Amino acid sequence: MANFELTRDFIDEIRSLIENKDKKKLAEILEELHPADIAEIYEELNIEEAKFLYFLLDDDKAADVITELEEDDRQKFLKSLPSEVIAKRFIDNMDSDDAADIISEFDEDRKQEVLSHIEDVNSAGNIVDLLNYEEGTAGSLMAKELIKVKESWDVPTCLRSMRRQAGEVDDVYYVYVVDNDGILKGTLSLKKLLISSPKSKIKDIYNSNVISVKADTPSEEVANIMNKYDLVALPVVDDIGRLLGRITIDDVVDVMREEAEKDYQLASGITEDVEVSDNVWLQTRARFPWLAIGLAGGIMGSRVVTDFMGNIGSHPQIAIFMPLIAAMGGNVGIQSSAIVVQSLASGDMGIETPWKKLFKEFAVAIFNASILSLLIFSYTFLIGSDIALTITVSAAMFSVVIFASLFGTFIPLLLDKIRIDPAVATGPFITTLNDIVGMFIYLSIAVYFFAKLG
Amino acid sequence: MANFELTRDFIDEIRSLIENKDKKKLAEILEELHPADIAEIYEELNIEEAKFLYFLLDDDKAADVITELEEDDRQKFLKSLPSEVIAKRFIDNMDSDDAADIISEFDEDRKQEVLSHIEDVNSAGNIVDLLNYEEGTAGSLMAKELIKVKESWDVPTCLRSMRRQAGEVDDVYYVYVVDNDGILKGTLSLKKLLISSPKSKIKDIYNSNVISVKADTPSEEVANIMNKYDLVALPVVDDIGRLLGRITIDDVVDVMREEAEKDYQLASGITEDVEVSDNVWLQTRARFPWLAIGLAGGIMGSRVVTDFMGNIGSHPQIAIFMPLIAAMGGNVGIQSSAIVVQSLASGDMGIETPWKKLFKEFAVAIFNASILSLLIFSYTFLIGSDIALTITVSAAMFSVVIFASLFGTFIPLLLDKIRIDPAVATGPFITTLNDIVGMFIYLSIAVYFFAKLG
Repeated sequence: MANFELTRDFIDEIRSLIENKDKKKLAEILEELHPADIAEIYEELNIEEAKFLYFLLDDDKAADVITELEEDDRQKFLKSLPSEVIAKRFIDNMDSDDAADIISEFDEDRKQEVLSHIEDVNSAGNIVDLLNYEEGTAGSLMAKELIKVKESWDVPTCLRSMRRQAGEVDDVYYVYVVDNDGILKGTLSLKKLLISSPKSKIKDIYNSNVISVKADTPSEEVANIMNKYDLVALPVVDDIGRLLGRITIDDVVDVMREEAEKDYQLASGITEDVEVSDNVWLQTRARFPWLAIGLAGGIMGSRVVTDFMGNIGSHPQIAIFMPLIAAMGGNVGIQSSAIVVQSLASGDMGIETPWKKLFKEFAVAIFNASILSLLIFSYTFLIGSDIALTITVSAAMFSVVIFASLFGTFIPLLLDKIRIDPAVATGPFITTLNDIVGMFIYLSIAVYFFAKLG
Repeated sequence: MANFELTRDFIDEIRSLIENKDKKKLAEILEELHPADIAEIYEELNIEEAKFLYFLLDDDKAADVITELEEDDRQKFLKSLPSEVIAKRFIDNMDSDDAADIISEFDEDRKQEVLSHIEDVNSAGNIVDLLNYEEGTAGSLMAKELIKVKESWDVPTCLRSMRRQAGEVDDVYYVYVVDNDGILKGTLSLKKLLISSPKSKIKDIYNSNVISVKADTPSEEVANIMNKYDLVALPVVDDIGRLLGRITIDDVVDVMREEAEKDYQLASGITEDVEVSDNVWLQTRARFPWLAIGLAGGIMGSRVVTDFMGNIGSHPQIAIFMPLIAAMGGNVGIQSSAIVVQSLASGDMGIETPWKKLFKEFAVAIFNASILSLLIFSYTFLIGSDIALTITVSAAMFSVVIFASLFGTFIPLLLDKIRIDPAVATGPFITTLNDIVGMFIYLSIAVYFFAKLG
């Protein structure tokens, strides 16, 4: 199967086939496509067209397509279907984690209705269990489907049991070894099982050095653990070590992407996940709030400037470097906060104390501040600015770079300490604050030197 | 095994054990730790201490630790060892992709020396093959180790062959089915193999609907494909479809992390990968270049202001909103470019034409510009600013927001078209340009209205 790329022409072809009700040709096309590709096609169709396609899919593939849809498209699509169809055609054919994710998007009444239509009590129970875990924890990422074997078994017993259990588990990378109380003892890779002698006992071949997490471990930590130890599946246990489920790498990759995108968005002043393909309203909603904060900050900055109006009136050349100083404060602040935010996100904070970190940032700041200050001094001196302006802009550059560096490092460390996402400290928030403080520093220094030297 | 967290105390303990040459206790501690954890410890030790630990590890674990080290720490460590030790103790115990990565970090002479000390000609050949692929392509990510079976075999033949091949392959998720010419026909999951009847023929049970990439496919595309289709391993083929190797998800997760971090760094004005734990010199080197660009841009902006000095002298209140307008231009520009950059990175550009995208951005911009302009108009009006200033700042806000939106959308689209990483368009570059243009728009409008109304 070649890699699929969605084109305008292809969508037009699909639409005209739907219009002509050419079920045979459409079924042929869908047969060739991966559920993730069909989901992309769904997102370009209207509800009636999508429904037409969905009746051409077998149950397993239909369930996979629903899982792959983006949340808002999925909600729109499922809204048009009765609860019984959702339960029997979709939920019954999904892994428990995907099923729980989708059911959690419904309101309370719909949730109950869909759950009541699930035929297999065991799988309904699994879903209800998963719905109880808080979003953003290991419990909310795990699936209950896994293959469990007992440490006391031999290889043939294990294989027989696996054949029974394997039907309902999609991706098997490891089997989990438990004792009679269901406590996780270790893992056994399928490779090991395939190459071991049939006479081996499970307890002699499994790997007892297994990494696991508890159900309330935060998702970011799960992602960092799976990344650090290169795991494709991670078992989840309860407080006394009983095996509850497993998290697979594909779900964690999504967590990592979302986390990285969220930090990037916050740094760029976007409040929610938007893409170029989203509509005007979604884009505006994601962008306007930060702009409004920027406006409020800018207005505060304008009050600072207003307080110095008299000085600017008598020495209008002060205005020349106002935007420069404000911009440099913003730039330095964003750099400093971004380094802290990224190190916090990847768990690479090292073993230094916060004071050591601030001290190091101070050393970097002194260096940058000195060079930048020297450069702007040389420039203003060479173009023949008056001495008061030359000294003002150099001194202000030095002070603003130092202040913005320390402020940009301190704020995200503080936010992290009090358990607020430090990523909000990057982007417009810190830029705006640095703008205001930078303006105040610059203008105060100007007043001093123009009084003394001007 | 519990999740390991590196502390200052633990490092101090390790160091004092090394000083006392307490090999027994150290070996016990290392025995319990994962290679990724030992790598973290190495990074806190000096070369002599690290070497002492390394002699306590068995060959397999020592090779894993070296693979897990960060590039600069690894280079420092390997520099202190003879080529023969590197070849026999590390390279011989690594997968071909890790070995090739490490050898590619050496200079030409060292590379030849290490290669000449590898005992197994076959594995040296694999490494040399991999070294030929360009960095940032599927070829540079793949390992040659995989399990191949022929479609004509039956299950027992397949299992026998697998037992022979499996020794050298660490993580087996699928076996790859090829024809007599080595052309990839499909995959067979170990689960399927375990639950199939021993009488089955491979050709009746394998999945022929396999997704593969060519060796020159860019890494970002590999990452997007594995993410979209939830794959843990992806086969790589040559131009006529012969199986060359396979890429595993752990390597791709690293690509995704690096890609996301790089975009974030560029948006924040950092030129290379730095962490809080890096030293002052590395941090300065990563940050100073962007600050220098910001300074140059700021100086250009100051020239714009200088041209309007006369007007500011006679109407100093113009200065009040200069920082606000500059900041809003920067904020809007970063938002617009970030959305394009992120959509390009995740492959979610949708099927609209570039003109359609710019038009949509224009609609978002008109909306934001109108509201922001109205807000600043109300504010200036309420605080009783003179009419010329009120109109100037409102009109400038409107124009600057529209300009910065379109500019922020257009530049990354253009860069992507001419194959420059669009992420450079976010961050200081676009902010600075928007500052300058914003200043010019604001001051020009001010001159016009103050002449007319002031």
